[in-house]
Amino acid sequence: MMKLFHAWGSCSLASAIALEEAGADYELAVISTRDGDQRRPEYLAVNPNGRVPALVTDRGVLTESPAILAYIAQAFPQARLAPLDDPFAFAQAQAFNSYLASTVHVAHAHRHRGYRWADEESSFADMARKVPQSVGACFRLIEDELFRGPWVLGEAYSICDPYLFTLAGWLEGDGVDPGQFPKVLEHRQRMAERPAVRKVLAKKAA
Amino acid sequence: MMKLFHAWGSCSLASAIALEEAGADYELAVISTRDGDQRRPEYLAVNPNGRVPALVTDRGVLTESPAILAYIAQAFPQARLAPLDDPFAFAQAQAFNSYLASTVHVAHAHRHRGYRWADEESSFADMARKVPQSVGACFRLIEDELFRGPWVLGEAYSICDPYLFTLAGWLEGDGVDPGQFPKVLEHRQRMAERPAVRKVLAKKAA
Repeated sequence: MMKLFHAWGSCSLASAIALEEAGADYELAVISTRDGDQRRPEYLAVNPNGRVPALVTDRGVLTESPAILAYIAQAFPQARLAPLDDPFAFAQAQAFNSYLASTVHVAHAHRHRGYRWADEESSFADMARKVPQSVGACFRLIEDELFRGPWVLGEAYSICDPYLFTLAGWLEGDGVDPGQFPKVLEHRQRMAERPAVRKVLAKKAA
Repeated sequence: MMKLFHAWGSCSLASAIALEEAGADYELAVISTRDGDQRRPEYLAVNPNGRVPALVTDRGVLTESPAILAYIAQAFPQARLAPLDDPFAFAQAQAFNSYLASTVHVAHAHRHRGYRWADEESSFADMARKVPQSVGACFRLIEDELFRGPWVLGEAYSICDPYLFTLAGWLEGDGVDPGQFPKVLEHRQRMAERPAVRKVLAKKAA
């Protein structure tokens, strides 16, 4: 059985949903980044980078959302979570997820995690003020250029969808009005109705 | 023939080297990010995100270094640039590249591109001051935990190697002493001797 180290409110939600969609035999190991669990020795032994997600498999540990999502798609091909037989289409899926990881998530992280890149309180405040603009610009690109609909890649649901759903869930907290992005908003609502998403989110309530 | 939009000094070097290693039929389309070419309408028509690399193929445009690198590995399987038949090992390669894109490159970008995430000159200065520490911490993790040797993934050269080589080339400019990281430094020297790397770098001199 695989074990996914997960923190509620973090991007590891995307991997949890993908595991659920794949029908994988897995358990969630929930840690609290608010309490700093990710920096404790027990967790650093799993992922020395001190971040979630980390997926423990019988072969070892995998980290980084885009890598874990692609792994789930490849390890459970019957779930058809990515265009596995078409390197170009697979690369498009990966490009979308890489954009979410390297640009969108990073823009968001400047709201609360400015200490990664600066030391002064004035810089943290400046960074936090800019988040609505920087995250908003990312979702403008997604809405206008990247998103095809009804799913990210078009007609086929894929590993891009739970990842977009996860990051789109941060918009209000980041001070961005999701109403500017009707395609993203409708996608978020469509995602919330999927059984796999409901099942994962029910674990939070439990 | 494929066309790689590339800027010298940027991360697109990794994709250029991978294309060369793969024996791909490609041309480099060099733009200058210093001159702002990436924000001109002609380039935004290629990549609306205004970043390099962008790989133009006969199927369309691919963006994001990790996605392009995995695509090159999959499109040229005979070059054996990734463990394509082993989803777990492939995910490990992808996790490394995703870490470079989302954490290492992002830390580096705070030296000159603070305007992406803040507005005040004082914040830019604060960010730039922190780069030696934040980038240094990334390479400490690579040196101590992630790098196997002689290549990133061990005995087999892969798409992780040109990407590490590219980012390790920024250490001195970021105020990080590469001598702290002997494995990374030796890897950088080993990479510089590869014919594919020499061939790409010769195009800069030309």
